[in-house]
Amino acid sequence: MKLLSPVDQIFLWLEKRQQPMHVGGLQLFSFPEDAGDDYVAQLAEHLKSETRVTSPFNQRLTSKFGQPAWTEDEHLDLEHHFRFEALPTPGRIRELLALVSAEHSHLMDRQRPLWEFHLIEGLQDRQFAVYTKVHHSLVDGISAMRLFQKMLTTDPDQRNMPALWSMPHSKRGKKEQSAPSLWNTVAHMLGESGKQISTLPKVSRALLQTVREARKHPVYQSIFHAPPSILNNKITGSRRFAAQSYSLPRIKAICKASDSTVNDVVMAMCASALRTFLMNQDALPEKPLVAMVPVSLRTDDSTGGNQVGVILASLGTHLSDPAERLNYIHDDVKASKARYADMTPEEILNYTAMMLAPTSFQLLTGLAPKWQSFNVIISNVPGPKEKMYWNGAELIGSYPVSIAMDRLALNMTLNSYGDHIEFGLIGCRRTLHSLQRMLDYLEDGLTELEAAYSL
Amino acid sequence: MKLLSPVDQIFLWLEKRQQPMHVGGLQLFSFPEDAGDDYVAQLAEHLKSETRVTSPFNQRLTSKFGQPAWTEDEHLDLEHHFRFEALPTPGRIRELLALVSAEHSHLMDRQRPLWEFHLIEGLQDRQFAVYTKVHHSLVDGISAMRLFQKMLTTDPDQRNMPALWSMPHSKRGKKEQSAPSLWNTVAHMLGESGKQISTLPKVSRALLQTVREARKHPVYQSIFHAPPSILNNKITGSRRFAAQSYSLPRIKAICKASDSTVNDVVMAMCASALRTFLMNQDALPEKPLVAMVPVSLRTDDSTGGNQVGVILASLGTHLSDPAERLNYIHDDVKASKARYADMTPEEILNYTAMMLAPTSFQLLTGLAPKWQSFNVIISNVPGPKEKMYWNGAELIGSYPVSIAMDRLALNMTLNSYGDHIEFGLIGCRRTLHSLQRMLDYLEDGLTELEAAYSL
Repeated sequence: MKLLSPVDQIFLWLEKRQQPMHVGGLQLFSFPEDAGDDYVAQLAEHLKSETRVTSPFNQRLTSKFGQPAWTEDEHLDLEHHFRFEALPTPGRIRELLALVSAEHSHLMDRQRPLWEFHLIEGLQDRQFAVYTKVHHSLVDGISAMRLFQKMLTTDPDQRNMPALWSMPHSKRGKKEQSAPSLWNTVAHMLGESGKQISTLPKVSRALLQTVREARKHPVYQSIFHAPPSILNNKITGSRRFAAQSYSLPRIKAICKASDSTVNDVVMAMCASALRTFLMNQDALPEKPLVAMVPVSLRTDDSTGGNQVGVILASLGTHLSDPAERLNYIHDDVKASKARYADMTPEEILNYTAMMLAPTSFQLLTGLAPKWQSFNVIISNVPGPKEKMYWNGAELIGSYPVSIAMDRLALNMTLNSYGDHIEFGLIGCRRTLHSLQRMLDYLEDGLTELEAAYSL
Repeated sequence: MKLLSPVDQIFLWLEKRQQPMHVGGLQLFSFPEDAGDDYVAQLAEHLKSETRVTSPFNQRLTSKFGQPAWTEDEHLDLEHHFRFEALPTPGRIRELLALVSAEHSHLMDRQRPLWEFHLIEGLQDRQFAVYTKVHHSLVDGISAMRLFQKMLTTDPDQRNMPALWSMPHSKRGKKEQSAPSLWNTVAHMLGESGKQISTLPKVSRALLQTVREARKHPVYQSIFHAPPSILNNKITGSRRFAAQSYSLPRIKAICKASDSTVNDVVMAMCASALRTFLMNQDALPEKPLVAMVPVSLRTDDSTGGNQVGVILASLGTHLSDPAERLNYIHDDVKASKARYADMTPEEILNYTAMMLAPTSFQLLTGLAPKWQSFNVIISNVPGPKEKMYWNGAELIGSYPVSIAMDRLALNMTLNSYGDHIEFGLIGCRRTLHSLQRMLDYLEDGLTELEAAYSL
């Protein structure tokens, strides 16, 4: 039996009927060339026989001295966790996204290990899909995406690969150090590890005090400028998931022409899409939207090192000119990163805690203060550059499925894979109507930048 | 805007993460003879176009003066309620039951009208299915089954029938008077209608007092004899649904040979199945199990009149001889009905309230007293005698999907349709392992009675 860390406890604590706290991934595969029509059904049979379940997939919640803890599930029922499903006619991506939208809306059974693995047949063009769902208290978002990737290989000829839940634990590696996030921040406010979740009301009061003091301080005033918007309403229990791949070479051509980074261009695409989406509902705030973005603290796109931080970036949604908006974002991101340049890691953590405090306060108390520091989360997770395979089936797309929360009705998470940037948008289906249109608006955002730079 | 009745409020109040309070029905259809392979997909297109949603399907929960009320959903999103789905390979009944088990485990989104209609393709042998899910606060169990039947016709040639949610309200008729149930009893204890749910703690105390006094009274002692069993443990959030049809002529032949009613024989089948199921887990109580059964208060099977009541019937699970067990059940049911013969309707209601009080108390407080009045609910709902059709597709089976609750981990509901009695068993998947085996044990129960009467 192992006690949950304070951060992991927070996910249990934040979970409500209309706010499930699980993360997921949608992976799209094509049949191996030599595969018969019953390829997916055979794969399902193979997976059903993988009844050896390794940690953390065999761990269920229990309680120890009144605190939540993990313990091995002695009666693990694989049929509950591994589900073989099918898409209805005509089996387009549209039907797949509808299925994932519905599944991602459902709470998981807390008496069992908090994960599900859905193998989905019935896609057109000899394709199939895997939708994986893991509670954030078991595995955090970035670790989850890495976990799903670990079940793959670069070798197209490898067969009889172990199921995700049967992999030897060592092969999956240790829980990786995550970027500073809302949750790490809250944990930081909680102080030393081992403190109980029962101190949360005290933490909320501390957060409120922090924010009030910061607002008086001229240096920090700039971080409370996010305008109110429909993205920051309360949410309901049903989700819409939208996902699409966009060409990385097209994005890189814009980087080159505009002297900006991939992350800048991706944010400009999001800014353009949000601007159109909100304008169409006559709901675009006058002041620019602000995104919370985990970034590499290096000033270029180089991959060395692991120095990541969180910035609040203005999305320039008040500007109508696409190139001007991209430059605005580029400068804002650069200034935010520069602010960290002379800070010690401890100072960065304190500064981050300050930025995220209003949102932490909202989430913990359910109350909306009169100010907020950001409107939306845009998270860019690096993925594999090489082609990946699973039992001979080529991975053709891999989309993160994240969490929508009260006051954060939309989450835009993306990863790179080979020649693509793959967006997964998750939102409250009632607060944000027709979220799926954002996919077209993202494409429009890319096209208008190409036009602006005559590409 | 219309306030919820106290009984309907109770279903909202009883609903917990691991105890959803919706009821459902599973209907199995065969394709019309002239139908093409895309028959179900075409039907889905037709249903998608039925965007006019009538009461009660357009009603969502709201609050009026702090009490729950129904109001029209101005932004009804049909795609959320009508879902077109498919079974994975090989598309047997087994895959269908797995899908219904999973869907019935999920809470519905309270910000929307509390119903879902799942059209399911991909069944073998040119069959398809409909799984309908309605919250018990919107429509009670028996009314729900009648509602699902109202969308059908006896005319095999009728086409372009309106969707369940688009039917003119008058055609569906008024909410029918239901049998006395746990819920009506609790409402009775609540006293006059209009009282708020906030008086529930007071009701719980009153129930406890009632039970304590009744236990001192020799006449009532007999109703607290249900033995403790695994059927009366706490439940978890995941369900197993099992369903099968059994031959009515075979059941009637046993009735004739044993001079008993269809209800007696059905109860004997349940008794036999429960006996085997519990014996296999070394969990059969020494004392016989007790079932709560809504019955016609007439002493024969005649259909005239609407006089229904609730009895507690001993299932004779301590007896190993099948014929002896059937006779025991027959006598016990007869004696229970006879007890009502000289009572006024008010006296029957008071007596029923007494019988159900311990269970009402358990459900309302979550506490298990040291005694209980029954172990399992067996509910037999009359269904259509004639063949029914939906847009030309013949209804070949119709199975109720009811509610499992804390301390009532199994619910056995059945209806008649044509030449069959159709069982729907819903249970907690963790508390009751391998519930699907009960289907074979019910068949065994029928066979052993045939052998006992040399049929």
